[in-house]
Amino acid sequence: MADPTLAELTRQLADTQHALAHTQTALNLVWILIAAFLVMFMQAGFALLETGLTRAKNVAHTMGMNYLVYAIGILGFWSVGFAFQMGGVGALATLGGDATLSRELAVTIDGKELGLLGLKGFFLTPECFTPAVAAMFLFQMAFMDTTATIPTGAMAERWKFTSFVLFSFVISTVIYPVYANWVWGGGWLSALGRHFGLGHGHVDFAGSSVVHLTGGTVALVGARMLGPRLGKFGPDGSVRPIPGHSIPLLVTGTFILAFGWFGFNAGSTLAGTDVRISIVATNTMLASAAGAFSSYLYVSRRFGKPDVTMLCNGMLAGLVAITASCAFVAAPAAIAIGAIAGVLVVWGAVFVETRLKIDDPVGAIAVHGMNGTWGVLALGLFADGTYGHGLNGVAGPVRGLLYGDARQLAAQCVGLAANVLYVGAVATAALRTIDKLVGNRVSEEVELTGLDEPEMGMEGYAAAAGPYRPAEPAGLPGAEPPDLVGVPAETPP
Amino acid sequence: MADPTLAELTRQLADTQHALAHTQTALNLVWILIAAFLVMFMQAGFALLETGLTRAKNVAHTMGMNYLVYAIGILGFWSVGFAFQMGGVGALATLGGDATLSRELAVTIDGKELGLLGLKGFFLTPECFTPAVAAMFLFQMAFMDTTATIPTGAMAERWKFTSFVLFSFVISTVIYPVYANWVWGGGWLSALGRHFGLGHGHVDFAGSSVVHLTGGTVALVGARMLGPRLGKFGPDGSVRPIPGHSIPLLVTGTFILAFGWFGFNAGSTLAGTDVRISIVATNTMLASAAGAFSSYLYVSRRFGKPDVTMLCNGMLAGLVAITASCAFVAAPAAIAIGAIAGVLVVWGAVFVETRLKIDDPVGAIAVHGMNGTWGVLALGLFADGTYGHGLNGVAGPVRGLLYGDARQLAAQCVGLAANVLYVGAVATAALRTIDKLVGNRVSEEVELTGLDEPEMGMEGYAAAAGPYRPAEPAGLPGAEPPDLVGVPAETPP
Amino acid sequence: MADPTLAELTRQLADTQHALAHTQTALNLVWILIAAFLVMFMQAGFALLETGLTRAKNVAHTMGMNYLVYAIGILGFWSVGFAFQMGGVGALATLGGDATLSRELAVTIDGKELGLLGLKGFFLTPECFTPAVAAMFLFQMAFMDTTATIPTGAMAERWKFTSFVLFSFVISTVIYPVYANWVWGGGWLSALGRHFGLGHGHVDFAGSSVVHLTGGTVALVGARMLGPRLGKFGPDGSVRPIPGHSIPLLVTGTFILAFGWFGFNAGSTLAGTDVRISIVATNTMLASAAGAFSSYLYVSRRFGKPDVTMLCNGMLAGLVAITASCAFVAAPAAIAIGAIAGVLVVWGAVFVETRLKIDDPVGAIAVHGMNGTWGVLALGLFADGTYGHGLNGVAGPVRGLLYGDARQLAAQCVGLAANVLYVGAVATAALRTIDKLVGNRVSEEVELTGLDEPEMGMEGYAAAAGPYRPAEPAGLPGAEPPDLVGVPAETPP
Repeated sequence: MADPTLAELTRQLADTQHALAHTQTALNLVWILIAAFLVMFMQAGFALLETGLTRAKNVAHTMGMNYLVYAIGILGFWSVGFAFQMGGVGALATLGGDATLSRELAVTIDGKELGLLGLKGFFLTPECFTPAVAAMFLFQMAFMDTTATIPTGAMAERWKFTSFVLFSFVISTVIYPVYANWVWGGGWLSALGRHFGLGHGHVDFAGSSVVHLTGGTVALVGARMLGPRLGKFGPDGSVRPIPGHSIPLLVTGTFILAFGWFGFNAGSTLAGTDVRISIVATNTMLASAAGAFSSYLYVSRRFGKPDVTMLCNGMLAGLVAITASCAFVAAPAAIAIGAIAGVLVVWGAVFVETRLKIDDPVGAIAVHGMNGTWGVLALGLFADGTYGHGLNGVAGPVRGLLYGDARQLAAQCVGLAANVLYVGAVATAALRTIDKLVGNRVSEEVELTGLDEPEMGMEGYAAAAGPYRPAEPAGLPGAEPPDLVGVPAETPP
Repeated sequence: MADPTLAELTRQLADTQHALAHTQTALNLVWILIAAFLVMFMQAGFALLETGLTRAKNVAHTMGMNYLVYAIGILGFWSVGFAFQMGGVGALATLGGDATLSRELAVTIDGKELGLLGLKGFFLTPECFTPAVAAMFLFQMAFMDTTATIPTGAMAERWKFTSFVLFSFVISTVIYPVYANWVWGGGWLSALGRHFGLGHGHVDFAGSSVVHLTGGTVALVGARMLGPRLGKFGPDGSVRPIPGHSIPLLVTGTFILAFGWFGFNAGSTLAGTDVRISIVATNTMLASAAGAFSSYLYVSRRFGKPDVTMLCNGMLAGLVAITASCAFVAAPAAIAIGAIAGVLVVWGAVFVETRLKIDDPVGAIAVHGMNGTWGVLALGLFADGTYGHGLNGVAGPVRGLLYGDARQLAAQCVGLAANVLYVGAVATAALRTIDKLVGNRVSEEVELTGLDEPEMGMEGYAAAAGPYRPAEPAGLPGAEPPDLVGVPAETPP
Repeated sequence: MADPTLAELTRQLADTQHALAHTQTALNLVWILIAAFLVMFMQAGFALLETGLTRAKNVAHTMGMNYLVYAIGILGFWSVGFAFQMGGVGALATLGGDATLSRELAVTIDGKELGLLGLKGFFLTPECFTPAVAAMFLFQMAFMDTTATIPTGAMAERWKFTSFVLFSFVISTVIYPVYANWVWGGGWLSALGRHFGLGHGHVDFAGSSVVHLTGGTVALVGARMLGPRLGKFGPDGSVRPIPGHSIPLLVTGTFILAFGWFGFNAGSTLAGTDVRISIVATNTMLASAAGAFSSYLYVSRRFGKPDVTMLCNGMLAGLVAITASCAFVAAPAAIAIGAIAGVLVVWGAVFVETRLKIDDPVGAIAVHGMNGTWGVLALGLFADGTYGHGLNGVAGPVRGLLYGDARQLAAQCVGLAANVLYVGAVATAALRTIDKLVGNRVSEEVELTGLDEPEMGMEGYAAAAGPYRPAEPAGLPGAEPPDLVGVPAETPP
C-alpha cells in the first residue's frame, strides 16, 4: 500500500485529535455522573443516620422528611435553583459551549462587576439541555439536596410536615442556589481575589461553606425557632439525654455518607482527566479517619466510654472539615484538619446543648455548621500552593496563611460572614412566614404520642405487622434466655 | 533529531489510532461494568423494600427469596437465558467481533425474517467468553435478576419456598430471555419498523416493558393464582390493610433502587463514549422526583395523610415509567411522565385491591406492570426526534405521536400485547405445573404462624437473640418514659 | 490553508500521543478510585452482617468495632503499613515513576534477593504523594481494612473494646502489610517463580490469601484465645446455637459485600484499560451465585431447611474462593470453584464448632480462612493459561495443575504455609501481649448483661427511645392481630 500524502495524513491526525477530545469529554462525563450517583446515595445515609438518632415513635416522620426532601429539592432546583446558581457569567457558557446561554444579575462597583444571581436555565428547557449541562445539573442537584436534608435532622421529632415541605422549596430555589452562585457560579465571593486582591477569592473546593455551613446555619435557625423537644431540658435548665432508637441505622448511615463523600469531594474536579482526583479522595479518607479516632480519644477521656453516636459525628466532622481544602493540602494536613474536627464536633455538640440551650437531635449544628466553618478556615491556613493555578481568574496556586498568603484567609472569612448573614436572614424570614401560614411545630399532644400517626397517617414500625420477635420468653425481657444463664464458659485461656 | 519519514509517521499515527480505539473500548467496558454493579445492588433495594412491607413473622422468608433469586437467576441466565436472549442475529456478533458466534431461531414470512430466540452462548463456554461478551452478560444478567425478583413481592407472605426456587429458574431461562430477545436481541419486535414500517419497531431503552412489565405481568398472574393472604379481604369483600413492619427498611430500599436505577438507565447506552448518558441520568432523576411529589399531592388530598409507602411507590413508578423513554425526551417531558406515573400508581394499587380483589403486598402490579405499560406508551407519545438515529435498522431518529409518528405508538402497543400474552401464558403454565409438583402456597397454619420457621427453619428476628431493648419500662410499652411526660417545653417561639 | 510541514505534523502527533497517554492514565485512576470506593463500602457490609449475626444486647459493641476499625486501619496503614507493604522494590517506583522512592529490606541467598519489607512511604509525606501513589494507597488501604474487620466477627460478643483498638493497630501496621509485601509488594513469595522455578511465584489476584486467609487466620487465633461465649457449649460439650438477632441486617450486609466485591476483584487489574476487567467481574458474579446455590442444596438436604445464615455464608464463600483466580479462569471453572466453596463453608462452620470447639459467631474462619485456602489452591488447579503473561517476572501465562504446571500449585502451597505461620505467630504474640496490658475478654457479668452499656456506654436499641411498636396488643406478643385470626382466605385456586 502506498503511503498516504501529507494532506491525507494531516486530515487523519485531525480526526484522531477530534476523537481523542471526544473521549476525554466522555471520560469527564462518566466521572461526574458516577460522582453524582454517589452523592445522591448520601440521601439514604442521611435518612438512616437521622432516623437512627430519633425515637421509634417518630420513625415514619423522620424517614418521610429525608425521603421527600430529595424529590422536592429536585423540583425546586430544576425549576429555579439551577438557573439562579449556574445561569450566570461563564458557568452555563463553559459547559454548553454556547456563551449566549448564560446571564448573571450583577452590581457594578468602581467598574468591578459583582455577580449576585444567575438568570438562565430555568426548567432546563431544550436549548440548555446539552449533555454537559445535564451532567452539571445532576451533580449540583445532588449537592443541593444534601444541604436541604441537613435541617431535617436538627428539627426532627417536632417539625410539622407541611411546614417542612414548604421550606424545602425555599432552600432549593433560593437559599442554597444564591449562595452557591456567589462561590461556584461566578458570583461576587469568587471575585474577591480578582477584584480586591484577597487571594483567589473565597475558595471552597467541594462545599464546606456552600453545602455544610449553609445547612448548619439553617439548622441553627430552625432548631432555635422550633424550640427544644418536650422534656429535653428540665425545669431547672438541666439537659436530659434523649437517645436515638437504633445504632445499626446510625452506623450504616454514617458509612453510606462516607462512601458518598468520595463522589462529593473527588467529583468536584468536574473532570476525570484531572489526576488530582486521587489526592482529593485520599485526603478525604484520611481526614474522616482522623476525625473518628480523635473523637474516640476525646470522648473516652471526657465521658469514660466511647459513645458510638459521638464517634460517628467525629467521622462526619472530619469529612465536612476536609471538604473545602481536600484538593489543596497534603496528607499530614488532612490528618490534622480531621483530628481537630473530631474534637471540635464533640465540644460543639455539648456547647450547643448546654450553653445555647438549643436542642439538635442529631448534632447537625456541630457537624455541619461548626465544622463547615472550620473547613473553610482550614483552607485559609493549610493550602500549600500545589493546586488551583489560575482559579477564579487569579494567577498562581492557592496558598493559605501557613504558606504565606494571609489574604486568602481573609477571603475565607468574608465568605463565612456572607453565608451566616444571608442564609440566616432568609431562613429566618422564610420560617417565620411559613409559621404564620401553616405553623412550624406540631402540638404537644402529637409530640408526646409521636408524629408518625398524626402527621404521616402510619406507624414506622406498625403494631399490626407483628412484634419483632415471635416468641419472647415471658417476663424476662432483656435477660439471658434461661438455659444459657450460669453455664460456665469453656475455660477461656 | 531528524524528522521521521512519512512512512514512519503513518505507522505511528496508525498505532495511535489503534491505542485510542482500545481506550474507547475500555471506557465503554468500564461504564457498562459500573452500571451493572449498580443494577446488581438493586437486589438489596428490592430485598429491603419488600421485607419492610411485609410482616415481622415472614422476614426471613421474604429476605430469603430476595436473596436466593439473585443466585438462581445468575445460574439460569448463565446456562440458558443469555443464549436465548443475546445469542441471535447481530448480538453476540457485534459484541465479540466474531459473526460466527451468533445464531438465531427465526421464522420467515414474506421473506422477512422474524427472530424468536437466540441459540449461541450457552454456559458462556470459552469461545464466547470475550471481554465484550462478558460485560454484556453481566449487564443483561443484572437486568434479568431485577425482573425475577419483582414477583417475590406480589407473592410474599404465602409463597412456598420450593415453588419459588423452581419458578425462578423458569423466569431466568425462558420467560425473561425470550421476550428480551424480541426487543433487544434482534428478535421480531425490534424488526417491526424495518419490516412493517412501524416506527423504529418496539423501542424500550432500558426496560419499561422488557424488565418491568414482564415482572409486573408475572406478579399479576402469580398473586392472582396464589390468592390473597389470610384476612386481607373480609367475608363481605371489604379490604383490610396489612401494614408492613418497617418503614426504615422500605425507605432505604427505595433509595437503593433509585441509586441503582442510574446504572439501569444510563448504562443502557452500553457506551460511556455516548455523551447522551447525562441526558438519560438527568431525565431519570427528574421523573423519579415528579413521581414522588405527585403521589404526595394525590395521596394527601385523597387520603388526608402522606402515607410514606405510597410516596415510595410514587418514586418507583416515576422511575419505571421513564425507563423506556429516558434517552428520547427532554426534561419537561420527563417531569410530565413521572408526575403521571406518581398518580397512576396510587390509583392502580387501589384498583388492584378493590376492583380486581388481588392481594399484592408491595404494590408490584401497579408499580411495575401499570407503569411499565405507561412508560412504553409514553415513549410512543413523547419521543422528540433528538436520539435513536438508525435504531433497529430504521433511518432517522425516534419520534412519538406528539412529534409526528403515530406508527411508533403502534409498535409500542404491539410490544405491550406481546408481553402480556407471552409472559402471562408461560407464567401461568409454569406456576400451574409447579403447583402440581410441589404446591405453590403454604398451609393456613404456616401462614398464620409465619413462614419463617416452617419454611426457612429460622426466625427473622430470633427470640433467643434477645429483645430489641434491654430494659423496657415495665407496663408502659409505647408510652413516653415517665420523667419526660408532662415536662413543659422550653417556650417555643 | 496550506498543509503543515512534516516537522509540524510530527510535533502534533507527539502532542496527541502524550494527551492519549494522559487520558489512559486518567481512566486507570478513575477505575482504581471507583473500585476503592466500592471496597470501602464493604465496611458497611461487614458491620451489618456481623451485627445481624449477634445478639441485640451487643449491637452497639459489634457496630462500634466494625465502625472504628475503619478509622484505626486508615491511621495504621497511613503511618506505617503502606510503607511496609508497597515501599519496596518496584512498587512505589512503578507507580510514582520515580525509582528513588522505593526501598525494600531483603535478604540475599545465593545471589537471589528475597524481599521482606518495604521501607519508603511512611506517613505519605509530600514527596511520595503523587496521584498514582495516592490512588494505590486508597485501594490497598481499603483492602487492608477488609482484613482488619474480619476478626471482629469471630471475636464478637466478648472482646474488650480497648483490646480490639490496640490489636487493630497491629493488624494494620504489621500483620497485613508484611504478608501483602511478600505477595504484592515485590517480596519473596512473588519471587518464588523467578528464583526457584515455582510457576509465577505465589499468585493471588485479589486477595484469597493476602486478605481473606490473613483475616481468617487471625480470626482462628483470636476466637480460640478468647474462648467461646458463655453458654455456647454445654457442660457435656454439646453445641448450642446462639442465633443472631436480625436477618435483614445479615442479608443487606451480604448484598453490600457482593456489591463491593466487584471493586475488590475487578479493580485489582489496577487498570481500566485492561479489558480483562469484565472477565474478572463476571467470574466473580458466577462464583458467588454458585456458592449461594450449592449451599442451599447442601443445607436443605443436610438440615432440612434452607437456613438463610448459611446461604449468605455460601455466597461469601464463593466470593472468597474466586478472589485469587478470578482473572485466570473461564466461566465454567468459576462456577465449579464457587460451588465447592458453598459446600465447604457449611461443612467447615460445623467442623469448627463441633470438632475444634471454637466459637465463631459469624463463621469467619470457615468463610475467610477455609475458603481463602481453597481459593489459593483453586488457582493452582484451574488457571488456564489465558492471562498473567510475564507476571512476577516469569515469561508466559499462569497455568495450574490441570493445565500442566504442578509447580504453580507448589507456589500456592508455600504462600499458604507462610501465611498461617507468619500471621498466626504475630497475631498470637500480639494478642497475648495485649491480654497482659488490658485484658482481651470482658467479665462474665458484662457478657451476660451485654457489652453495650458497660463497654460503649450506650444501648444499641435504647429503651428510652421507645419500643419498636407504639401499641402492641397486650398479652399477645407474636400472635396474629385478633381480627385477622381465623378469617378464611379468599379461595386460593
